[in-house]
This record gives sequence, C-alpha cells and structure tokens, in this order.
Amino acid sequence: MPSSEKKRVDWYKLSNELHLKYQGKIEVVPKVPVLKLRDFAIWYTPGVAGPCKKIKEAGVDLSFEYTLRWNYAAVISDGTRVLGLGDIGPEAGLPVMEGKALLFKYLGGVDAIPLVINAKDPDKFIEVVKIVEPSFGAINLEDIASPKCFYILEKLNEILDIPVWHDDQQGTALVTLAGLLNALKIVGKKLDQVKIAFIGAGAANLAAIKYIRLAGANPKNMVVVDSKGILHPNRPDIEELKEKNPWKYRVAIETNGEGVTGGIPEAMKGADVVIAASRPGPGIIKKEWIKLMNNDPIVFAMANPVPEIWPWEAKEAGARIVATGRSDFPNQINNSLGFPAVFRGVLTVRSRKMTDSMFLAAAYAIAKYAEKKGIHEEFIVPTMDDPEMFVEEAVAVAEKAMEEGVARRKLSRDELYDEIRELVYRPKKYMDVALKNNLIEILPPYSKE
Amino acid sequence: MPSSEKKRVDWYKLSNELHLKYQGKIEVVPKVPVLKLRDFAIWYTPGVAGPCKKIKEAGVDLSFEYTLRWNYAAVISDGTRVLGLGDIGPEAGLPVMEGKALLFKYLGGVDAIPLVINAKDPDKFIEVVKIVEPSFGAINLEDIASPKCFYILEKLNEILDIPVWHDDQQGTALVTLAGLLNALKIVGKKLDQVKIAFIGAGAANLAAIKYIRLAGANPKNMVVVDSKGILHPNRPDIEELKEKNPWKYRVAIETNGEGVTGGIPEAMKGADVVIAASRPGPGIIKKEWIKLMNNDPIVFAMANPVPEIWPWEAKEAGARIVATGRSDFPNQINNSLGFPAVFRGVLTVRSRKMTDSMFLAAAYAIAKYAEKKGIHEEFIVPTMDDPEMFVEEAVAVAEKAMEEGVARRKLSRDELYDEIRELVYRPKKYMDVALKNNLIEILPPYSKE
Repeated sequence: MPSSEKKRVDWYKLSNELHLKYQGKIEVVPKVPVLKLRDFAIWYTPGVAGPCKKIKEAGVDLSFEYTLRWNYAAVISDGTRVLGLGDIGPEAGLPVMEGKALLFKYLGGVDAIPLVINAKDPDKFIEVVKIVEPSFGAINLEDIASPKCFYILEKLNEILDIPVWHDDQQGTALVTLAGLLNALKIVGKKLDQVKIAFIGAGAANLAAIKYIRLAGANPKNMVVVDSKGILHPNRPDIEELKEKNPWKYRVAIETNGEGVTGGIPEAMKGADVVIAASRPGPGIIKKEWIKLMNNDPIVFAMANPVPEIWPWEAKEAGARIVATGRSDFPNQINNSLGFPAVFRGVLTVRSRKMTDSMFLAAAYAIAKYAEKKGIHEEFIVPTMDDPEMFVEEAVAVAEKAMEEGVARRKLSRDELYDEIRELVYRPKKYMDVALKNNLIEILPPYSKE
Repeated sequence: MPSSEKKRVDWYKLSNELHLKYQGKIEVVPKVPVLKLRDFAIWYTPGVAGPCKKIKEAGVDLSFEYTLRWNYAAVISDGTRVLGLGDIGPEAGLPVMEGKALLFKYLGGVDAIPLVINAKDPDKFIEVVKIVEPSFGAINLEDIASPKCFYILEKLNEILDIPVWHDDQQGTALVTLAGLLNALKIVGKKLDQVKIAFIGAGAANLAAIKYIRLAGANPKNMVVVDSKGILHPNRPDIEELKEKNPWKYRVAIETNGEGVTGGIPEAMKGADVVIAASRPGPGIIKKEWIKLMNNDPIVFAMANPVPEIWPWEAKEAGARIVATGRSDFPNQINNSLGFPAVFRGVLTVRSRKMTDSMFLAAAYAIAKYAEKKGIHEEFIVPTMDDPEMFVEEAVAVAEKAMEEGVARRKLSRDELYDEIRELVYRPKKYMDVALKNNLIEILPPYSKE
C-alpha cells in the first residue's frame, strides 16, 4: 500500500467545515460597469426595453447576443443518484451541483448555476428542462438515476434547441475513450480488433460502450457483465430487460459475439481491455482474473472512492496499464477533463446540439494533447491543471459543431483560439485578483499548501 | 418643459449598443479559494459528499447553511407582460430579468439569477416554480400578465416554504405606500381619513390598494377607475369581473362607499390623493381635474415612460406634492428602493414567508429613513444611491420575520446590522476592485460621466 493511503486527508470532515464557513462556492457579480446609479437606465429601465424589442423583432436567437445566455449553463439534477449516496433528494444534492458550477467556471469559463429540482418522474423532468430552456445556452444533467437518465438525455437531445449533456454518462465515457485510445497506442493494438470486457452496466459503462463503438470498436468483441452476470440474448431476464431497460437490452443483443456466459472472470478471459465502472472495491476484480487476460492487459478500474482492484495489485498480476477514477494514482479518468471544455466549445459557437461527432472530436483532442506531451504507461490522459488542454479540446468541439451545421455562429480557427483562450484563462486571473483584494479570504482550516 | 426633457439621452440606442458589447450584465465567479486543483477534492468529489450526507441526515433546511442557497434568488418570468412591451416571450424578456439580477446584487448583495420560462399557463407556471424551489432561498416573480399574476402569487405564497415576491405588484405598492405616508405627514392629513382616487386597476394599483388598506386607509374612502370607468358593485360588467378577475371584483365591492359613478374626474373630485398607475401620458389626468381635488392635493402619476400628467402641469394646477416613476423628477416611486432590501432581509434570516406585516415594516422603514433625512414636498422617498437606506429596510424586514415566527434563523439586532451591512456594501467594493483590475472594462459608448 503506497504512502498516499496512509496519510489520507479526511476530505469529508474538511469539506463539511469549509462548506459551513464559506456558505456558497460561487456567487453572482456584475459584469458591466456601475459607476453611478444612472447607469441602471442603461442596464435596466428604460434602456433595457431596447434589447427586448430587438430580440422580439429579430428572433429569439438574438437573446444569445444581448444577454448572458451565450455563456449561461444550468447544472440540473433531481438528486436521485448523487455520487455514491443514492437518492438523497434535490436539497442534499445541491452541494454537488454547486461544486460542478464552480468547476465549470474555473476550468471552462462557463457561467453555470446549480438547479436542483423536485421532479422524479422522467417526463416531468424533461418538461421542466424544456420550460427553462429559453434562459440557457446549454444544459448539464447530473446525478440522475439509471435507467431513466438514458431516456431523459435522448428525449432532451431531440427536443431542445441547445446542447444537452449528461455528465455521468458522457463525461466518464469521453475521458475513458480518450484514455483507451492512448493506452492502445502504447501496447500497439487496434481499437477495431481488441476484445473489451465491461464490468458494470450502469450509466457510465453503457455510455462508454456506445461511444467506444462509435469510435470503431467491434461490439461483437465486447463482453458486458452486470450484477447478474454476462449479458447475452438468452439470459433468463432478457424480456424483463427489454421492458425495463431497453438500453441495456440493446447491449445484450448486440455485443458478445461468441456467446460467452458466466461472470467477471469469464468476461475477462482473453480480453485485451477491461473497463470497470461497477461498485467500490477492492476485490471486485481479483488478481488472478487479470492473469486470464490477453498479453499487455489494460485495466480501467473506475469505481469511487475505491477502485474495483487496487492499481498495485493489478500491476502485480501483470496489467501493463492501469487507470482509475482517483487523483492519487496515475491515469485518472477524470470527468473534469471533459465537460468544461465541451461546454466552452459548444457555447462559444452557440451550438444547437451536441452531436456524436462532436463527442468524438473532444475525445481525440484529449488523447492528442496527452500524446503530444508524451504518453507512456503512467500517462495516458492529461491532468486538469493544464488550461491549454481545455483550449484545444474546446476548439475541436467548436470546429466540429460548425462543420456539422449546428453552430449558430461561425468563427475562424484564430478567432476560436482567441475567444476560448481568453475565457479559459479569465477565471484564473479572477482568482488572483479576488485573493489579493480579499474578495475571497483564506479561512481556516483551508490550507494554502 | 424642463431642460431634462430637451437633452434626453436615447437610452434605447445606448442600451442596445452596450448590451451587444458586454453580452451579459452578470457573471458567476468562485467564492472560495482555488489555489491548487487538489482543492476540488474539498469543493467537489470526494469531499462534497460530506455536506450532502449532513443535509440528508439533518434535514433540508441545512441546505441553506452548506451551500449558496441562503443568498440565492431566482428572477422568474414567462415574458407575458414585459415592461410596457406586452407579451414578448421569455427570450425577449431575458434582458430585463438579467438587469434585475444585477440590481439585486448591486443594491442588496443578493445572488440572483434570471430564469425565463416557457409556461404561460398559470398552473404550469406555479408547478415549475414549486419544482425548482429546492435550489433557492427566495423567488422574485416579474413581468407576468394580469390578472393571472395575482393567482400565481397567492398560490405560490401558500405552497412555497421560501418567500415569494411579485415586484410588479408589491414592489411598486411598497414604495408608493412609503411615499404616501410621508406625503400625508407633510400635508398634515391622516391615512385613515383621506379620500384616495386610484387611476388604473392593474397589478400595481390593485396591490397598492391592498397594502394601503392594510396600513390603515378606509376602503370606503377609495374610488378606483379602470379603463371602463369607476368600479362599483352595480357596474354592468360586475358578474364578468367576478368570473375573470376576482381581485378587481373584490375591490369593486369593497371600495367606493359613496357609490360614485363616472370616470377619472368624478373619482378625483374631493380626493386628497390620486394614485395613477394606468397608461403613458401626458393627458390621462387633466390639469382641471387636479383643481377638483381637496386642498393640498397629492398626485402620484406613475406611468412610464411618461407620467399620466407632467409634474409641472400638476403643480400649476395646484398639486402640493407630485411623485412619478421617473428618476429625472423629484419623488421617484422606484421599485429599486424595495426589492433589494426586502430580499436582503428575508434571506439573511432564512425566512419561510414574506408576510403582510413584513411588507408594512419595509414601507415604514423606507418612510422613516426619508423622514430622518428631512422630508419636504420634493423629497418624500429616499433615493437609491444610499446604501444605509437598504440596510435599515432589510433589518426591519428581518426583525419582523423573526417576530412573526417565519425566520429559520434568529439574530440579534447588532448581528443583523453587521451581516446585512457587510452584504450590502460588498458589491460596491467588488465594483471598485473589478474596475481597477480590468475584470470589468470601460467600453465605448459607455461614459464615466
């Protein structure tokens, strides 16, 4: 066990204390000068009737130009599956949504706000998001129970005229795909030929399966295990699945070309890659099962807070590359590498949609950025302390949106870089200014180190 | 005509240009230190699960302590009656709601966000607000068509466990009442004895009637005129009113003790006060009708952008005190004197409701503040460039909330003053810092003068 395990911070305790002290992780501030109260005649009545009339006359798209809307995103949750805590309700989920809004701003320059809602019924949820759509430039869904989250995302993607993203599905899938692409480069294997075992068939892995297929993997070479064993068309519960979780059902029908049955070890036998997003370990994946895999095993063990197998155990058993969800091991599959830049990209070009091609463009951009820095077994994805990574990824998403014809706004590559870089770096500048001028104070037990 | 009329700024044009340049009047920023990316383990996963669990275990009220919720308000509109522009829809209404959010922060230290919604049906509107309630500490309704706005406010006030306020009703009524109280002091008349003519029976005046009655005026001494003439129980459309606008119907039944019929001049005859919130003038109220009033006439002509009668005309006709909705004449009945402080007060004590007594406390505080400064014919209400006015008003509201038993939090008077003053002055400090450090830039045609 490495030293990081011994001297672990009690994050819960520290977080509780600091949340109580600061009482809010984000705030709203003016973005325009107010030097005299007369200025409100510009920003409010009577002047503001001017922009209102312009939008009314020229069409609702003008609301992106005359207001904050172009950069305004909602982090929406019903609190039915918050972190690993389950259905704790909207109020108890609010700290997470607010934290996400902080990440959106700090990493992506996006003005995001938390919006927790009392709407457990999926159709009600969809209706409410559609109703609030006119306020926002994009919607981030968060911590919604599976399988309704699949239905909600599909439906909203269809009916909204702004991009919608479910980070528990797409965020994890995006960074997983980027990491997988680089891991395969290191071991010299091809995505369309490798066998992949997926452990877990919840939101993250069903999305990973979808996008890894889109990137070129062969579904027949995938074997997927849920809590009842390997998915295949003849499983006793297949009709029930069809009814209750058609997304998982489709995976059961379309994967597993060899008709493998059994559990995790059977799924891993002969696999080149295992992608686990199931439940906290250790011990979900056993060392001896790694030994059943093909040469140069690639292991993604992404359960939090403890991976399905400890990285050192996987390595001891022969894994060549190991990734987890944790920041204290190499190769963190970290959603935060994805959503801030994806939103930065779609918002900058006022995209109407988030398409699959835009998703793949983001994954390739992340992978390419790490590759340029020099990939190796312990570095398959970038880390989130690198603003240029977000810039590259956002530009890739924005360019693809223009190419796909879903962008409301066309910019040259140079313009994209300029605007996006400015917005990505601005929050860091803000932090400096705020700390120097005591707009943000250092309150114990927060430590600068 | 005074010089202010000759050299008027073209506010629409200036506002259009500056809205396009700044593209957003507010933004979201971090309120906590982020000195290293490891800090996100406090503000986001894994640490944030701590506050989530605390709220889940100890009850939803704890969400006010662990998040931004205690200071987080939504400015919600369906865009069905925006300024004088009518039903222009949510997107075209967004510039107003964002401007309001700016005022909320700048004047009251409230983190308000605009939320325009596609929900014209009043029951749908109510449902959506109830669904988003868990996010917020208070709700500000704005620019909703009458009479559904009365129904929406009443219903939400009943079902929400956070305060709700409809500024087009209550905001105007609050400052009108404060101004009226001081005007009566100047002319030496008593509220429970004066005759009041109300011109217009929309959201603003129906609310003014309600609260002026609550403050002690006798409804029998009120005569109310709408577009069809004076309201009285025998008007031909009385049954239709009962059906379609029960709020106006009740006013028709309960006011006008002498059974006056006719139009505006008949209503004004013998009145001590006229309160007009009808439609843009001039010429809605004629000079000769002022002459029909009792001695020392008090005239509130609040239509925008042009009052029902020009102040100088009213004065020439004998009005002793004239108030309008405009900042370029004395005695501006300005909503901005009300809502920022009302919200500051209710949010600081985490109030569950906005009660009538709290409303009256706010009105008395505004009136008293002006009185201390020295009231006279041209100064019956304070101006909004005085932060201490907001502090006094907010403290009065907060204390009344505690007294009424609707506050979640109890504070001493000293604590109230300290907290509220800090929050009211903070945005002014922010503005200084932001301008000095180029977080906010001065872009032409914005002028510092």
